[in-house]
Amino acid sequence: MASNPSLKEALPEITDAIVESYMMCQRINHLGHFPLPSREAIVDILADLMDLLYPGYHRRQNLHMGNVVYHVGDLVDGLHDKLTQQIARALRHESQQGQECDFEALAQQKAIEFLRKIPDLRFLLEEDVLAAYAGDPAAKSYHEIVFCYPGLEAITIYRIAHELHQLSVPLIPRIMTEYAHSKTGIDIHPGARIGHSFFIDHGTGVVIGETCIIGNHVKIYQGVTLGALSFPRDADGKIIRGKKRHPTIEDEVVIYANATILGGDTVIGHHSVIGSNVWLTHSVPPHTVVQLEKPSLRIRRPDDELVPNYQI
Amino acid sequence: MASNPSLKEALPEITDAIVESYMMCQRINHLGHFPLPSREAIVDILADLMDLLYPGYHRRQNLHMGNVVYHVGDLVDGLHDKLTQQIARALRHESQQGQECDFEALAQQKAIEFLRKIPDLRFLLEEDVLAAYAGDPAAKSYHEIVFCYPGLEAITIYRIAHELHQLSVPLIPRIMTEYAHSKTGIDIHPGARIGHSFFIDHGTGVVIGETCIIGNHVKIYQGVTLGALSFPRDADGKIIRGKKRHPTIEDEVVIYANATILGGDTVIGHHSVIGSNVWLTHSVPPHTVVQLEKPSLRIRRPDDELVPNYQI
Amino acid sequence: MASNPSLKEALPEITDAIVESYMMCQRINHLGHFPLPSREAIVDILADLMDLLYPGYHRRQNLHMGNVVYHVGDLVDGLHDKLTQQIARALRHESQQGQECDFEALAQQKAIEFLRKIPDLRFLLEEDVLAAYAGDPAAKSYHEIVFCYPGLEAITIYRIAHELHQLSVPLIPRIMTEYAHSKTGIDIHPGARIGHSFFIDHGTGVVIGETCIIGNHVKIYQGVTLGALSFPRDADGKIIRGKKRHPTIEDEVVIYANATILGGDTVIGHHSVIGSNVWLTHSVPPHTVVQLEKPSLRIRRPDDELVPNYQI
Repeated sequence: MASNPSLKEALPEITDAIVESYMMCQRINHLGHFPLPSREAIVDILADLMDLLYPGYHRRQNLHMGNVVYHVGDLVDGLHDKLTQQIARALRHESQQGQECDFEALAQQKAIEFLRKIPDLRFLLEEDVLAAYAGDPAAKSYHEIVFCYPGLEAITIYRIAHELHQLSVPLIPRIMTEYAHSKTGIDIHPGARIGHSFFIDHGTGVVIGETCIIGNHVKIYQGVTLGALSFPRDADGKIIRGKKRHPTIEDEVVIYANATILGGDTVIGHHSVIGSNVWLTHSVPPHTVVQLEKPSLRIRRPDDELVPNYQI
Repeated sequence: MASNPSLKEALPEITDAIVESYMMCQRINHLGHFPLPSREAIVDILADLMDLLYPGYHRRQNLHMGNVVYHVGDLVDGLHDKLTQQIARALRHESQQGQECDFEALAQQKAIEFLRKIPDLRFLLEEDVLAAYAGDPAAKSYHEIVFCYPGLEAITIYRIAHELHQLSVPLIPRIMTEYAHSKTGIDIHPGARIGHSFFIDHGTGVVIGETCIIGNHVKIYQGVTLGALSFPRDADGKIIRGKKRHPTIEDEVVIYANATILGGDTVIGHHSVIGSNVWLTHSVPPHTVVQLEKPSLRIRRPDDELVPNYQI
Repeated sequence: MASNPSLKEALPEITDAIVESYMMCQRINHLGHFPLPSREAIVDILADLMDLLYPGYHRRQNLHMGNVVYHVGDLVDGLHDKLTQQIARALRHESQQGQECDFEALAQQKAIEFLRKIPDLRFLLEEDVLAAYAGDPAAKSYHEIVFCYPGLEAITIYRIAHELHQLSVPLIPRIMTEYAHSKTGIDIHPGARIGHSFFIDHGTGVVIGETCIIGNHVKIYQGVTLGALSFPRDADGKIIRGKKRHPTIEDEVVIYANATILGGDTVIGHHSVIGSNVWLTHSVPPHTVVQLEKPSLRIRRPDDELVPNYQI
C-alpha cells in the first residue's frame, strides 16, 4: 500500500546517469562559475518598469502627486542595481573566451543610459494608447487599454527590449520579448524598428521578424506575419545571419487579420491597406488596396444534397 | 570591478524627469486618491470562482459532501467582500466627474446579484463540458476537459464576465476576458452573447467580437475570427462606437479552423458548416455547407525540377 | 457609505443553492475521498524537470561540476516522491469502479521508469536545440534557444508528457501539454509520435493532433495545423475514439506558416516542402513542393479610384 523503499535504491544510479549526460551533451548545460542572466529577475525588472511607465495601474496603488516621487525614486534605485547585475552577467557570458573587462562598470553605464530613456518611452507609449483608442470601436477608455490590451503590453515590452538591444545588451532583450510572446501570443523581435502610434488589435499569432522596418501610424490585426521569404545560404549551405530578411511597412498602413507579408525587399507603400488572409511577397506602391479576389467558395444547399453528418 | 557610486548620482535627476513626464502625458497615469480595480485582485476572484464552479479540481482538494458546505460558505463570504470592493472601485472611477453616490452599496448589490447566478452558471457550464466531450474524439473523460481544456477555461471566464457585464459593471469584465485571452489565446469580448453547449477546440487565435450573437450547440476551432467588416464613422471620420459590427451564428453551426466571418449583417443560418480557411462576408441560409473551392496548388515533383534548398 | 450588513444575510441561502447544484450537475464536481492529481503539483514537477534537463538555465544557478551531483540527487529524490504521489492519484481515479490494487506501488514503478529516461531525453533535446540553431537565422546562440524559444519549451514538455503517456499514466500527460499550450500557444497532444531534431519556429497557433506521426528533421512554423479531416462515427452517430485521424509527416519535411494538413491517411513524403497557407487533404510523394498558386489579388491603385477610409 505504500511505496517500496528498496526501489528507491535505483535513485543514485539515475542521478549518476543524469550527471554523466551533462558531460556528454554539453550544449544544453550551463555549468560554471559565471551565472547566466536569470529569467525570473528579468520578469521582475519588467514588472518594475511597468509600474514606472504606467503609474497607478499595476502593483502599487494609491499613488498621487504627493507621494509618487518617493515611489519612483525607490523603483529607479532598485532598477539601477537589478539591471546592472543582469546586464553584467549577459555581457560576461557573451564575451566568454574572456578578454578581461570590467563588466560591472560597463553594465552600470548601460543601465543608467537605459533609465534615462524612460521619459521618452512614456511619450511614445502615450501615442500608442491614443492610436489604440482611435482604432478600436470596442475600446471604452484609455484606462481599459492600459489595463488589459495585450497589444499594448507586447508593444511596451518590445519598446523596452529594443532600447536595450540598441545599447548592445545581449540575451536580455530576447528574453523580454519572448516573455511578452508567452503572455500575449504576439512575437516581436527586439531588433525590429517600429515607428510611433503603433496598434495591434487582438494580436494572437502576430509575428514581426528581426529585420522589419515599420513606419508611423501602422495598425495590424491578429495572425499577421511579417516574415522571411528565404534564407540566403553560404557555399556550405549554412544560413547567413544578419541580412535584411523581413519587409518594410511605410506610414499609415493597415494590415488585416491573418495576412502574410514576406521578404526583405518587400515594401508596402504608405497609406496602403492589406486585406485579411492576403499572402504577399512583392512590393506595392503607396495608397494601394490589396484584397483577395472574391474566393471561389463551394456552397451546397440542402435542396442540392443533404449532408447531415458532414465533417471537413 | 564594481559599480561606480558617483554614476549613481544621476539617479535623482532621472527620477525627476520621470515624475515630470507624469504631468506631461497624463493619459497613461492614474494618480489620485481613488484607486482603480486591481488586476491581481480580479485574478484572485477568478480563482475563487473556479473553485466554486468546479469543486475538487483546483486549489482545494479533499472535498466531500460532509465538508463542502463550509468550504463554499467561506468562499462565498470572501467573494462578497472582494467583489464589492473591486466593483465599487470600478463604479467610482467610471463616474469620475463625481456625482455623489454610495458606490459601496451599489457595488454590494451587484456582487450579491452576481453570486446568485452561480448555480445557473454551473448548469450552463455542465452543458459546455458535455458538448466538448461529444465533439472531440481526443477527450478521454469529463475530468480531462474540466482540468485542462483551454476552450472550457475561456468559456467559463467569458460566462462569468458576461454576467458582470449584464450588471453594468465597468472595466472588470474586460480585465477578466483578457486574462483568459492571455492564458488560452482565445479572445472573447464580454459583450458577446453566446448560447448553451458551446465548444471551442484547441482555440489559439480565436477572436469573438463584442457584438457577436451565437446560438446553441455551436462548435468552433482554432484561429476562427468572428469580426468586424468595417467601422461606421461619423462626419468627422471618428469611429462610431456601440453598433452591431460582428456576425450572428445560429444554432448547431460548425466553423472549422482559421475561418474568418465578418460583418454585423452577416448571419450564418442554423445547421450550417463553414470550412477551414473560408473567408465569408455575407449571410448564408440554414443547412448550408461552405468550403474553399479545391485550391489551385502548384505541385512540383523532383522529376520536373530539383529544388534541394528551396525556401518559401 | 459602507456595505450593508443586512444584505449579507443572503449569503447562506446562496451557499445552499450552490451546494445543491453540486448534487444536481455532478459531472463537473469531484467530491470524494480520493483526490485528483493537482495541477499546481504537476507544474512544480515540470519546473524540477526543466532544472534537471537544462541545468544552469532555470531556477538554480551557480552550478558547476563540483556541486551539481548534490543538486541532481536532491531533485531526483524529490521527483521520485512527487511523481509517485501524483501518478498514484491519477491511476486510482482512472480505475474508479475500484478493483483493489496497490496504486502507490504501481505509481512508484512508473515514476522510476520515467526518471531512467531522463538521460535519453537530454540527448534528444540537444538535437532539437541544434535543429533550431541550424534552422533560424535569428538565433544568436544555443543559450538563447534554451532560454527563451517557445518552440523548445513546448517540445520539451511534449517529450516529457509522451514518456508518461507511453507508461500508460492517465490525465497527467495532457495536463502537462495543455500547460505548455497555455505558455507557448503550441498545442501538441502527448499521444503524437515525433522523431528527433524537430524545430517549431515562433509557434503560436500550432496544433499537432493525437495520432500524428512525424519523422526526423521536420521543421514547422506558426499557425500550422496537423488535424483531423473527419471523425468516424458509429451507428448511433457517436464519435469513434482512438482511430488514426491525423497525418503522417516523413523525414526532412518543412511546413510553412499557417498551412493546414488534414486526415489520417494523408502522408507527406520525405524532403517535401509545404508552402505557407496551403490547405492539403491528400498525400504527396517524397521531394514534392506544394505552394499556393499565385493567388488572384485585387489590387486597386489611387489613380483607379480613391478609397480614403477603406475598411475591410
